[in-house]
Amino acid sequence: MIKVGIVGGTGYTGVELLRLLLRHEAVALTQITSRGEAGRRLDDLFPNLRGATDLAFTDPADAALAECDVVFFATPHNVAMQTVPGLIEAGVRVIDLSADYRLRHVPTWEQWYGEPHTSPDLCALAVYGLPEVNRPAIKEAQLVACPGCYPTSVQLGFLPLLERQLVDTDHLIASSASGASGAGRQGKIANLLTEAGDSFKAYGVGGHRHLPEIEQGLAAIAQSSVNLTFVPHLVPMSRGIHSTLFATLVDTAGDLQGLFEQRYKDEPFVDVLPAGQLPETRSVRGANACQIAVTRPQGRSTVVVTAVIDNLVKGAAGQAVQCMNLMFDLPETQGLNVIALMP
Amino acid sequence: MIKVGIVGGTGYTGVELLRLLLRHEAVALTQITSRGEAGRRLDDLFPNLRGATDLAFTDPADAALAECDVVFFATPHNVAMQTVPGLIEAGVRVIDLSADYRLRHVPTWEQWYGEPHTSPDLCALAVYGLPEVNRPAIKEAQLVACPGCYPTSVQLGFLPLLERQLVDTDHLIASSASGASGAGRQGKIANLLTEAGDSFKAYGVGGHRHLPEIEQGLAAIAQSSVNLTFVPHLVPMSRGIHSTLFATLVDTAGDLQGLFEQRYKDEPFVDVLPAGQLPETRSVRGANACQIAVTRPQGRSTVVVTAVIDNLVKGAAGQAVQCMNLMFDLPETQGLNVIALMP
Amino acid sequence: MIKVGIVGGTGYTGVELLRLLLRHEAVALTQITSRGEAGRRLDDLFPNLRGATDLAFTDPADAALAECDVVFFATPHNVAMQTVPGLIEAGVRVIDLSADYRLRHVPTWEQWYGEPHTSPDLCALAVYGLPEVNRPAIKEAQLVACPGCYPTSVQLGFLPLLERQLVDTDHLIASSASGASGAGRQGKIANLLTEAGDSFKAYGVGGHRHLPEIEQGLAAIAQSSVNLTFVPHLVPMSRGIHSTLFATLVDTAGDLQGLFEQRYKDEPFVDVLPAGQLPETRSVRGANACQIAVTRPQGRSTVVVTAVIDNLVKGAAGQAVQCMNLMFDLPETQGLNVIALMP
Amino acid sequence: MIKVGIVGGTGYTGVELLRLLLRHEAVALTQITSRGEAGRRLDDLFPNLRGATDLAFTDPADAALAECDVVFFATPHNVAMQTVPGLIEAGVRVIDLSADYRLRHVPTWEQWYGEPHTSPDLCALAVYGLPEVNRPAIKEAQLVACPGCYPTSVQLGFLPLLERQLVDTDHLIASSASGASGAGRQGKIANLLTEAGDSFKAYGVGGHRHLPEIEQGLAAIAQSSVNLTFVPHLVPMSRGIHSTLFATLVDTAGDLQGLFEQRYKDEPFVDVLPAGQLPETRSVRGANACQIAVTRPQGRSTVVVTAVIDNLVKGAAGQAVQCMNLMFDLPETQGLNVIALMP
Repeated sequence: MIKVGIVGGTGYTGVELLRLLLRHEAVALTQITSRGEAGRRLDDLFPNLRGATDLAFTDPADAALAECDVVFFATPHNVAMQTVPGLIEAGVRVIDLSADYRLRHVPTWEQWYGEPHTSPDLCALAVYGLPEVNRPAIKEAQLVACPGCYPTSVQLGFLPLLERQLVDTDHLIASSASGASGAGRQGKIANLLTEAGDSFKAYGVGGHRHLPEIEQGLAAIAQSSVNLTFVPHLVPMSRGIHSTLFATLVDTAGDLQGLFEQRYKDEPFVDVLPAGQLPETRSVRGANACQIAVTRPQGRSTVVVTAVIDNLVKGAAGQAVQCMNLMFDLPETQGLNVIALMP
Repeated sequence: MIKVGIVGGTGYTGVELLRLLLRHEAVALTQITSRGEAGRRLDDLFPNLRGATDLAFTDPADAALAECDVVFFATPHNVAMQTVPGLIEAGVRVIDLSADYRLRHVPTWEQWYGEPHTSPDLCALAVYGLPEVNRPAIKEAQLVACPGCYPTSVQLGFLPLLERQLVDTDHLIASSASGASGAGRQGKIANLLTEAGDSFKAYGVGGHRHLPEIEQGLAAIAQSSVNLTFVPHLVPMSRGIHSTLFATLVDTAGDLQGLFEQRYKDEPFVDVLPAGQLPETRSVRGANACQIAVTRPQGRSTVVVTAVIDNLVKGAAGQAVQCMNLMFDLPETQGLNVIALMP
Repeated sequence: MIKVGIVGGTGYTGVELLRLLLRHEAVALTQITSRGEAGRRLDDLFPNLRGATDLAFTDPADAALAECDVVFFATPHNVAMQTVPGLIEAGVRVIDLSADYRLRHVPTWEQWYGEPHTSPDLCALAVYGLPEVNRPAIKEAQLVACPGCYPTSVQLGFLPLLERQLVDTDHLIASSASGASGAGRQGKIANLLTEAGDSFKAYGVGGHRHLPEIEQGLAAIAQSSVNLTFVPHLVPMSRGIHSTLFATLVDTAGDLQGLFEQRYKDEPFVDVLPAGQLPETRSVRGANACQIAVTRPQGRSTVVVTAVIDNLVKGAAGQAVQCMNLMFDLPETQGLNVIALMP
Repeated sequence: MIKVGIVGGTGYTGVELLRLLLRHEAVALTQITSRGEAGRRLDDLFPNLRGATDLAFTDPADAALAECDVVFFATPHNVAMQTVPGLIEAGVRVIDLSADYRLRHVPTWEQWYGEPHTSPDLCALAVYGLPEVNRPAIKEAQLVACPGCYPTSVQLGFLPLLERQLVDTDHLIASSASGASGAGRQGKIANLLTEAGDSFKAYGVGGHRHLPEIEQGLAAIAQSSVNLTFVPHLVPMSRGIHSTLFATLVDTAGDLQGLFEQRYKDEPFVDVLPAGQLPETRSVRGANACQIAVTRPQGRSTVVVTAVIDNLVKGAAGQAVQCMNLMFDLPETQGLNVIALMP
């Protein structure tokens, strides 16, 4: 059994990790920390866990994290980078679901997050945890930086086009939409049911922190510089991300449907829909899946890719467990073959 | 492996059965019928099933149902009673999720459903599939009539009070509320997002078909006649039933919290919340669980019980699988220890 | 033109008052205060007001409230009672939408609100602003205490039965449900879209602050003591209250439909639906209307009344404007004949 | 008083027209037809209209439409073109909210709608009812073809850029999202709360009927051919359209914020938000308003415009009333200065 610890288990990413790890047959969850909820039973905070665990939150200061085989960080940015260096030194493997180690270029991180990075050396060590791109490196990694939710959907959608240099990388466009759980479990007026419900809006058009992460990933895939215009939107639903991607084809001769199917045919969690079908976020609710469609409207030169994931699963906790499975030589799908909840 | 067939798999109860049975390790799903969708792949109709099955719907006329060990009926009322007699004769076990065999008194059934019952003899044979009441009989049953969703929540909520004769059975009140999946997957204007969304209403106040079923069950529990006023409501959400039950205590001396905890302490799927907590439907979304709280506001003589289930799981497909586990001597919880999806 | 001030305009009751008063032809809105938002334009906080007003919030300390003809308080409880005495002394009329002056019995107020009342004398002066009960007194009042949202729906629903002593007042039951705007515009986790959305729950079963207000009102109507069991629920929608009321008839001879129609035939904002119809909250969204249905299921002795209002209109801002119209001898419906928004 | 008739009043556009016209002081609504609901009171079908009208639906065959000053068609496509020619001949003015007369090029209409046009001659007579583009022609028009909901938002968003030839018209992109009322009031499974709720998807990527209408409008504005990639999405909400528009600037020197503000400064129903603010659909719920923001992310060459309307108001019924006001020399804003409902 793999001894697992979780730092910061009171957010939506945390409770989703719990849902998956408490049913993962190779995992023994031994520690879960929270400064604010130390001593409180998990199932008191999250009644959906009643019957599934008797654990209580531990104060981070008291947690025996160094005794774990792997520690997940499900914290806001800026927290992991304080604690991870010590764990790395102690030989513990770390899967960070926050943004702290996603950007390789430290000054870019510092510019977008508005503060100095306190463990910049580890940024080079960290492996970006997108298995469809980095599977071999993830297996060997000691520190995995899990991709953000928007970045997962955008990178998986553009990937086949960029790998084959089929599109103009100077004018990529991503119009993405997320359910409200993407904003976290914090008491902000903007995320009240009465504010975010029955409405739709764009936000962060001037600059969202996922932009540099996506551009870094797309550039690595394309092996060239890229310019992305990224507009996220807030949807009145709990879970799900839908990315609508636009690019101008520089080569219109190819069979795009075949290209996508071929690229992802061996990927257990990326599913190219049959031609003519379009994905819906609800088809992957609760599942570690990305469903993708590729279309060329009116046969023109603009290609449209639509991709959906559950932001808390393939966009966060599920992808983290997928990385863990790779790191510990478990079947990649173990604990993850959950069927999406519909309706 | 138990060979399982499903009749009528295109509704919400059907797809929920599929979600559970396709991951049940003792089950081999061999047949699923639909007159309207015969030949179509399941995962074409329900994209959440992609990767989980290659089955297609079969025309009922062509289905080899008699070769199954057990057949589930996930059909509207009036369908099962046409086909079940033949299966019973062939020795197949049947779990009917529809209303056809729920009422023991055939004239009452005919009055509420407005048509003659075509296999009235089987009504006496059928075992009412509420394991918390009828576990031994379910194990032996050839034909199980699964309870309706409202009836499950109302009966589990009143049960400890009625078994102990603690309340006035002449004036029981159930104010229940259901998500829209309770209305089924049919194209009715009243159930459009634009009609049922962002609104709340009572319906069927003059008489709902679940009333005679609930009264039959409560009377059996109380061993006396009962009068229930039952008001169902429609909630703008997909899944979940919440029942708020009111009764006048004839004996106010007892420890109600202790009574409920004691009654359900060995039940794997009924969970009495700690005193002071109240259940929410989302805590059981996707799970085969009933969460219950009992309260005596202001210390007066009216007791209030609130109970939640997922109408498609403990109120339908999950309860049916629980019955199947009992009928085939499997662990009662097999395939059902799913953690609810939150948020 | 009536010079109007508003204290506390940043909540949902405040913005709803603005929507109504900015289109009321007899009103000149001159002051609107907010400590937190002083100096900010109203339409910056509430973009739905763009084009409707150029006003900005004023610091309460700087507001010339004493120069107004009437001041509305749209504040949390405990605020009005600090400022109202001075305004009353200055001859200003006050319409308080908060709870401060709703209870005539000061010790009861202090018990439920957990603090001393700082202007207890005014509790006797205040007129309870339910026009269907207190119209003459409201016309003459200097201080109106507007009813809470739940209390409005429950009192209007029980009123005809209680006035005629038709029901057992010892066991009244109200199972009510409210949209999330009833919880106010504050950043609380429990009211996030991700928490309150797609779920349904009861709350405050042990005791809600609206209980003593409702019992006070029902007792006044019935001219006798009453015992009410009141269970509020949270519905995943923005606006609307639905109350399902249960009582045992002590006289079952009467024509309840006729009684309700007769009682409300001259009320401009209470609408008894034709027999057989049931109200939905969306039918009154944005309108100052209460729609009511009365039913006697199975012809038994339990009568069921269902009543809907928009909690922010007939349950708050609209009722306050209706009171203002009465106080200033305007047509009672002026500024209030808005048609509900559907869908 | 203008004598007004409505053909097809049972859909969402119809009930919205009723909400506006029943409160319009210059209008006498005399006829409203429906084949299916003839004889039924309007307020029986739409309880939000109780107290606002005593009218009943008339069978189209019996309606005295020729006696009206103006007739609105709130019908599916293919209906108006059967009846409009007779009305035009009788000298009645017509405002068609359907798609029948929106396209000037009849073969294009026939290609996208898959049937012959039965009154092609009137396509040239019809004036496209977008006042911000065609105000003078609308005033004189006998037949107005009201724009579709998506087309209104997309054209108003691109208009200032196209009029000044600032963008590459070969690669325009519109990623739009609509509430479910855009799909109409018909009992289709795809629009059930249980299907469209709590989910997000694109649809019609291969080709939506609004595409040729938008391209025709944009080309007229730009005075050049245009290529638009248009992807509509379905949002789990009742009302509202949000369009996110992308274009490549061919001239990056200008002050885009100033350009938009200048272009719309005299438009009563188009509102350019201050720099840095982004529109939300709820800010215009129920109002005849379009709120717009223009942004140039990262100072790059891609300009992003976001625009919101209420699809049933500025996208349908409100715009139709605005056209009527122009046609009958009424103040353009009469009956339309409703403040949006928030929350």
